[in-house]
Amino acid sequence: MDITFLGTGAGVPSKKRNVSSLALQMLQERGSTWLFDCGEATQHQILHTNIRPRKVEKIFITHLHGDHIFGLPGFISSRSFQGGDSPLTIYGPKGIQAFLETALAVSGTHLAYQVEVMEVEEGLLYEDDHCTVHCHKLDHGITSYGYAIQEHDKPGELLVDKLKEEGIEPGPIYQQIKENPVVEYNGKKLYREQFIGENKAGRKICILGDTRSQESTKDFIQDADLLVHEATFAKGETELAYSYYHSTTEQAALLAKKANVGMLILTHISSRYQDDDIDALLQEAQSVFPNTKIANDLSTFQITNMR
Amino acid sequence: MDITFLGTGAGVPSKKRNVSSLALQMLQERGSTWLFDCGEATQHQILHTNIRPRKVEKIFITHLHGDHIFGLPGFISSRSFQGGDSPLTIYGPKGIQAFLETALAVSGTHLAYQVEVMEVEEGLLYEDDHCTVHCHKLDHGITSYGYAIQEHDKPGELLVDKLKEEGIEPGPIYQQIKENPVVEYNGKKLYREQFIGENKAGRKICILGDTRSQESTKDFIQDADLLVHEATFAKGETELAYSYYHSTTEQAALLAKKANVGMLILTHISSRYQDDDIDALLQEAQSVFPNTKIANDLSTFQITNMR
Ligand SMILES: [Zn+2]
Ligand SMILES: [Zn+2]
Repeated sequence: MDITFLGTGAGVPSKKRNVSSLALQMLQERGSTWLFDCGEATQHQILHTNIRPRKVEKIFITHLHGDHIFGLPGFISSRSFQGGDSPLTIYGPKGIQAFLETALAVSGTHLAYQVEVMEVEEGLLYEDDHCTVHCHKLDHGITSYGYAIQEHDKPGELLVDKLKEEGIEPGPIYQQIKENPVVEYNGKKLYREQFIGENKAGRKICILGDTRSQESTKDFIQDADLLVHEATFAKGETELAYSYYHSTTEQAALLAKKANVGMLILTHISSRYQDDDIDALLQEAQSVFPNTKIANDLSTFQITNMR
Repeated sequence: MDITFLGTGAGVPSKKRNVSSLALQMLQERGSTWLFDCGEATQHQILHTNIRPRKVEKIFITHLHGDHIFGLPGFISSRSFQGGDSPLTIYGPKGIQAFLETALAVSGTHLAYQVEVMEVEEGLLYEDDHCTVHCHKLDHGITSYGYAIQEHDKPGELLVDKLKEEGIEPGPIYQQIKENPVVEYNGKKLYREQFIGENKAGRKICILGDTRSQESTKDFIQDADLLVHEATFAKGETELAYSYYHSTTEQAALLAKKANVGMLILTHISSRYQDDDIDALLQEAQSVFPNTKIANDLSTFQITNMR
């Protein structure tokens, strides 16, 4: 699983940073990619990556500001034009359906696949045998959400050495032990828990939309392996951040620290910050939360289990 | 006056050709720029030009296919964000207003300037002291228009040598002769027509949306100095062009020839054509109409009076 940033700027595109979008690539885990936000020219950015639009299974929209949604009609249309035929589900705040329906109807767009639009509210949004997705309300003037993807724990490995010590040689019995709490073998009861290693904890990834720093987000992101948080402004600009419903680098880092996350990636960087400023932004965050990165367009990070 | 192509591809963006948009720059003539179509990432392309969004006074939409309109909400929003405060008028087929209203409402976008949306029909669309704009229906499955910009003729220069021969020395009288059909001067009647050179003909620029080749377009584009025509397909693909409501290179060139235009620029090139193919496309058009060019993204052409 890794995460590729497609747009890391705030509000308007610049030559260096496009408007918001990122891709959570889970090709090994589930053979698909999820997008979070889809600002204008997301499909153009994708042309410079290995992401295949037909593999995009879900799109989560954090909020309806134009720099987070205006690339959606184009991405959806091109996915069809390029032969995508598997269903696509789009999650977002109320209004996303009207936006999409109007854009597709007016443009006479007929998709070769099924699109389901889910207008979301706080709470459990989605669950399957790989993970759950929860949704949490942020503080951004208009409705803005954060999404938490929690992988299920995976059962540990079979302890083959221990089985052999007990004289149990490889065969169909190994699979039986894996699948059943108790198995009878040569008149002996074998308990699964004795022959299976520790559970491998699933990863937790939290991707937040634009937001003021808020205390109530702490529980939602608690112990995440990865937190993606906006940092529109530098440490010193708390008033500006507050009045525009955004966060500073330091506020994001403090939240990451309080919630004991594994790694913090900052994005949604104002175009007022260039080159050297970016280093300064990074340092002020790292002085609070050392394992902080700042995302650039097209940068990719592996998501490892930090527990 | 010159024309800059912002997107010259068909249907979906590629690394080489973005979806449709072009800018007619009339900074000398009227201190402003007009856009024709506004596919996704038009505002991104503009970042690589000298076009200033705040100087964009009018946007003409040829038809509502996504590759011609999905950049409109983003362009309009960013123009405001970047301090644009002069009014903007958008012309396009019925449906353009609903698209824009929904996109702006859903995204909570409040513009710092006034937008007027005019849903157009065939005929005279606009007139001021610089030019007229007419609109003509094409053949593209959905409503698609061509636009003709006709500059007014400009009165010729005052023939100063001739005035001096008649013993009329420079002074306020020169301006009076320019402005009045007849002027009395030292008891003599001076007729303007005798002292003014030939009218300078205004230029005619025709920019067409996607279309099948159609005979009825000939009169609309007759004697244009510049014709911008789509050429989605190569000469041999007339059936494909017909069934997708598009044109071939040769069809566009034939029309240019029949209508006696000055120069033809082909755009909306399918991504099936790359590199060497493009040379072939150009040659097959030039063999019918020699003064043909193929537009590339960000290429600019001066528009000269060909009469
Ligand atoms: Zn934003
Ligand atoms: Zn088109």
